[in-house]
Amino acid sequence: MSKPKIGVVGYGTIGTRLADGAALQEDMDLVGVVDLAPTLPVRALHESGMDYDLYLVDPSRQPEFDALGIPVTGSFEDLLDQVDVALDATPAGIGAKNKALYKKHGVKAIFQGGEKNTVADVFFHGYANYEKGVGQDFLKLTSCNTTGLIRAVDALDREVGVEKVAITIIRRVADPGDTHRGLVDLLKVEPVPNHQAVDLMTIMPHVDATGFLVHTPVTHGHIISIVATPKKSISKASFLDVLRAHPRVRVVRIADGFNSNTSLFKYARDLGNKRGDMYEIAVWEECIGFSGDDILFAINIPQEAVTIPETVDGVRACLEMQTDRLQAVGLTNVYLGMKAQKTSEV
Amino acid sequence: MSKPKIGVVGYGTIGTRLADGAALQEDMDLVGVVDLAPTLPVRALHESGMDYDLYLVDPSRQPEFDALGIPVTGSFEDLLDQVDVALDATPAGIGAKNKALYKKHGVKAIFQGGEKNTVADVFFHGYANYEKGVGQDFLKLTSCNTTGLIRAVDALDREVGVEKVAITIIRRVADPGDTHRGLVDLLKVEPVPNHQAVDLMTIMPHVDATGFLVHTPVTHGHIISIVATPKKSISKASFLDVLRAHPRVRVVRIADGFNSNTSLFKYARDLGNKRGDMYEIAVWEECIGFSGDDILFAINIPQEAVTIPETVDGVRACLEMQTDRLQAVGLTNVYLGMKAQKTSEV
Amino acid sequence: MSKPKIGVVGYGTIGTRLADGAALQEDMDLVGVVDLAPTLPVRALHESGMDYDLYLVDPSRQPEFDALGIPVTGSFEDLLDQVDVALDATPAGIGAKNKALYKKHGVKAIFQGGEKNTVADVFFHGYANYEKGVGQDFLKLTSCNTTGLIRAVDALDREVGVEKVAITIIRRVADPGDTHRGLVDLLKVEPVPNHQAVDLMTIMPHVDATGFLVHTPVTHGHIISIVATPKKSISKASFLDVLRAHPRVRVVRIADGFNSNTSLFKYARDLGNKRGDMYEIAVWEECIGFSGDDILFAINIPQEAVTIPETVDGVRACLEMQTDRLQAVGLTNVYLGMKAQKTSEV
Amino acid sequence: MSKPKIGVVGYGTIGTRLADGAALQEDMDLVGVVDLAPTLPVRALHESGMDYDLYLVDPSRQPEFDALGIPVTGSFEDLLDQVDVALDATPAGIGAKNKALYKKHGVKAIFQGGEKNTVADVFFHGYANYEKGVGQDFLKLTSCNTTGLIRAVDALDREVGVEKVAITIIRRVADPGDTHRGLVDLLKVEPVPNHQAVDLMTIMPHVDATGFLVHTPVTHGHIISIVATPKKSISKASFLDVLRAHPRVRVVRIADGFNSNTSLFKYARDLGNKRGDMYEIAVWEECIGFSGDDILFAINIPQEAVTIPETVDGVRACLEMQTDRLQAVGLTNVYLGMKAQKTSEV
Repeated sequence: MSKPKIGVVGYGTIGTRLADGAALQEDMDLVGVVDLAPTLPVRALHESGMDYDLYLVDPSRQPEFDALGIPVTGSFEDLLDQVDVALDATPAGIGAKNKALYKKHGVKAIFQGGEKNTVADVFFHGYANYEKGVGQDFLKLTSCNTTGLIRAVDALDREVGVEKVAITIIRRVADPGDTHRGLVDLLKVEPVPNHQAVDLMTIMPHVDATGFLVHTPVTHGHIISIVATPKKSISKASFLDVLRAHPRVRVVRIADGFNSNTSLFKYARDLGNKRGDMYEIAVWEECIGFSGDDILFAINIPQEAVTIPETVDGVRACLEMQTDRLQAVGLTNVYLGMKAQKTSEV
Repeated sequence: MSKPKIGVVGYGTIGTRLADGAALQEDMDLVGVVDLAPTLPVRALHESGMDYDLYLVDPSRQPEFDALGIPVTGSFEDLLDQVDVALDATPAGIGAKNKALYKKHGVKAIFQGGEKNTVADVFFHGYANYEKGVGQDFLKLTSCNTTGLIRAVDALDREVGVEKVAITIIRRVADPGDTHRGLVDLLKVEPVPNHQAVDLMTIMPHVDATGFLVHTPVTHGHIISIVATPKKSISKASFLDVLRAHPRVRVVRIADGFNSNTSLFKYARDLGNKRGDMYEIAVWEECIGFSGDDILFAINIPQEAVTIPETVDGVRACLEMQTDRLQAVGLTNVYLGMKAQKTSEV
Repeated sequence: MSKPKIGVVGYGTIGTRLADGAALQEDMDLVGVVDLAPTLPVRALHESGMDYDLYLVDPSRQPEFDALGIPVTGSFEDLLDQVDVALDATPAGIGAKNKALYKKHGVKAIFQGGEKNTVADVFFHGYANYEKGVGQDFLKLTSCNTTGLIRAVDALDREVGVEKVAITIIRRVADPGDTHRGLVDLLKVEPVPNHQAVDLMTIMPHVDATGFLVHTPVTHGHIISIVATPKKSISKASFLDVLRAHPRVRVVRIADGFNSNTSLFKYARDLGNKRGDMYEIAVWEECIGFSGDDILFAINIPQEAVTIPETVDGVRACLEMQTDRLQAVGLTNVYLGMKAQKTSEV
Repeated sequence: MSKPKIGVVGYGTIGTRLADGAALQEDMDLVGVVDLAPTLPVRALHESGMDYDLYLVDPSRQPEFDALGIPVTGSFEDLLDQVDVALDATPAGIGAKNKALYKKHGVKAIFQGGEKNTVADVFFHGYANYEKGVGQDFLKLTSCNTTGLIRAVDALDREVGVEKVAITIIRRVADPGDTHRGLVDLLKVEPVPNHQAVDLMTIMPHVDATGFLVHTPVTHGHIISIVATPKKSISKASFLDVLRAHPRVRVVRIADGFNSNTSLFKYARDLGNKRGDMYEIAVWEECIGFSGDDILFAINIPQEAVTIPETVDGVRACLEMQTDRLQAVGLTNVYLGMKAQKTSEV
């Protein structure tokens, strides 16, 4: 039986990482990536040896690639003729336009969080509602913040039940190298509730949620402070065990040197991870507290890579590669190198 | 009956503003300010016309002032011979050393939040525990964050009772112009609970509190997200009425342009306020939400000036100028130009 | 003889300060300011007591002002019926549109640096080419960076002659409170030569110039490093005397605490200057060096207020209030409170 | 003939990269790295598979490593018994103390720029004064800024001669993840001349130099603006050819997307470079200009990795592996994967 064939559409911050993640799945076959112009990521792909075949949105621009000696394998539609599912990582709004093409070619698609929910049949999160995505044609992933948030809340919810959450999102305002947005010496506030709280309730309708969001002038990871009211009380030690058992969560300690969002990024670079990426959200062991039975805790979300695992889960769901949630996410985790930490670690 | 005489010790970011605030109290007499060296604030005092008399910690340094033509009125102890209360705004730790001098001269003193609680008889907040400060010799103010936080929580507590709070402090890491500290592209986290949650419980022992704190690379105001469990439920409209009725709280709207901590600073500059200062904390009208009966709301704390009103309240308390809380804070408010907003404002 | 009548069009960051500056000129009469909507500066004008009469671009929006109790004196054209010169501080591109209105009402106008040079008869700098503006109808000011740059280069040029300059502009990327632009953890570069070098050559055609510009994530002042080749050599002491003699230049010392662009902003706040503004560029005494006869020095440009004096000079020129350059700038300086520093100061 | 044996002392930001760089030299043998505590880089070394053997400064701390399962090969002195040269990347000041140990063990050493020049026999730069390092016992590398600066100035100097330079250093104030230093909304200035100009004259005594330095709140690369007076004039095209021919210089274009220091960092991450590092300084093609015969150009210096090649050159020099400058740097370049760009590239 041949492996399912995957294409990545849009080779920017998310698309580059979707290609990396898909290429690591031993039970999938990455056919190639699609882009429009010889952008810096495309030039880096070329300079580092064309790990992925390149297809062009607009073949009339091929001379620009030829001039740089960048090999082009075919057109966007050539790619769609070959693949079973497209991972669409184009700028917000383009995915909706691409959908017609996907339908024309009988290709399933998974959109990223920037698209509207209506673009897809299911608003999807690998851990929280895998079953809803099974066999569907069009999935939309939760945004980076919501993906990480739900990982943590879902883990707590499956252990003791969560009645309600109030979240504070301390958001990085731009990715590294982004010259199109930014803030200087400002904490920009957004109305309550933020979309992440609303999205959480869409994915986890039994939880009441509200949230406040502040944009901050940093680039290496969002931090979310979560106040959760559990259905039955849970100790800090037990909560830590739940988190350490989750392959997509990394419990870290300020005392060890993980004292900022950027320390996690630096650690990922020192691990030698490609692009300095980390798929796991982090939870600070020292940043868990209680007011009454309510749990206050804080997570870090590496915005560039965090949605990759759940997108790969989406491939498994829509193509019915696995129908069981834990079997599916477990395979994704293995191929991406994520595993549980030892519980009750000293 | 002569007015009580006030001295300000330490003429830095807080001391300059304590002098401004004390000078505005028509029922107090600011004798002068004390500093060590011809710092930039001292030079600005001179260049703008010596609004306040200057006393020196170390008279042997007078030649440095003479060389610059800066008039010196006397020594630190000369000032203490004249005053009833010293407002100590020296760097953390120095206040504790100065206490011996205050005792020697029979002068009461109010310390800022950087000192240890043990330096004082009472850990003081004008609105929350005015009565405890009445007639005491040594008060310590809450820190800037805690001062603003308690203003808001106390207001809610007096209306409907507050059972518990979980706070997230998004802290500015340095004051404008501070070259001794700072962070770049980092959100630095601190262990839970932060001292502000602990301090709140010290001042308001009937409230359970915990809190998470993140340092952010900005200079113009802390933002605190507060999740409060009220003893009885309160609507958003009623809560807004409570806040608008508070002369030290300013309800603002994102829709009007107040979309960041810095927009409040800019507005204070445009008001023509001295040093671009604002004494009021701000609450964003659009940033109030609910999860169950819990209220989530966000406040902005102008760290350079926020403790001035409560420090002036402290003068009133320790000197027994007023024994009634509302009478005392009301006078402070009038002299500092703070007043309630219209409630149910459109 | 009645005083010339002035109107300020656009009440934003520059317009507010043009109004302040014009109001201080005892030989001019500020009729009022024009704006479009009840922006935060307009609300601050109202809250602080309507120092300036307000005129509306679009009278149909008056109900928005009425609802807030903000008094409106008339329309934009009502203002133009009364004034001799309009100081246009509207967003880039609007000034060019307003020009037709100015012509219709027979009103002269001075545009800010954001407009194209072609909007005006003369590209103007009060110190460098005052004579060219005398009696003209439409002047365009140099931008904030160029205004400050030319102040310094013109001073050196009038003393010893300047053959050529190579400048490096370390630019603040946004004003305080601006949420529409910014950069995070980035130094954004622009092609050489920057427009400021080109503009300098337009105003001072006998000087050869080139320049490099970097946008930096700060808000409180541009810094320019200037490498100037003088026609005859000049010592550091003599150059300092030239700078100290210039009322629009402030020589400061790192040793005194002026160790950043923001220390100058903080000092202006401590001086009690309105909005925390400073009209003077600063030169660091310790930041003057030589390589051969070339002089390297660094200036700080307070971007919010620096063009106000030269704009006021423009009023004097276009209305022929003074035909002599030094007489004109001298009066502007007196009314704005700028004066020379003592030379050979210790 | 056995390969020379290398040890890296201090496994922080520079030490990790010296180990990476030394390990890539096929004609050298990296024995191991030395550190003090289970820091995050040490934990990352462990988590990613112990690419390098670890030696401990203080064997009494071995239990801390044992508790984490981190294998320790021996002590600092055990390492020194095995190596020919130590690459000392300890914090400033420690290298000088370590020197006694190096002497005791008869080991040569190369210190980084943080140490005082007096620690070494030669102040060394691989391209500019390789010959002076040949056979010496103790070398001190130029700092990151000076290393990059001299690469560029030396290249120009060898082509047409350089009479003098005036530089403006726009310095990143902290490395990514550094919570011990930083600045917010500040451009902090330093006295002229900066140490880099002085250092350049030490290494290249025939060039007159001065310089101004501004610390900026960014982490991903220093930018230096250089105004150079060549001994004979050179065209932009010829200068670009010189730069493109230099294996440690990368000419880039704003038009291609390289519009900031951080775009270069992002590109290195996308290349898949370990830790997202780049050894080359970059020169922006569009940022070269002229005022008279003086050349103005701007370079970017990736501060985390830039000194690695010149340090490896130092090994070659002090161990007399090569006595010829170009042969030595050429081998370093080959093993680190740096090569010349095509000249007259379109």
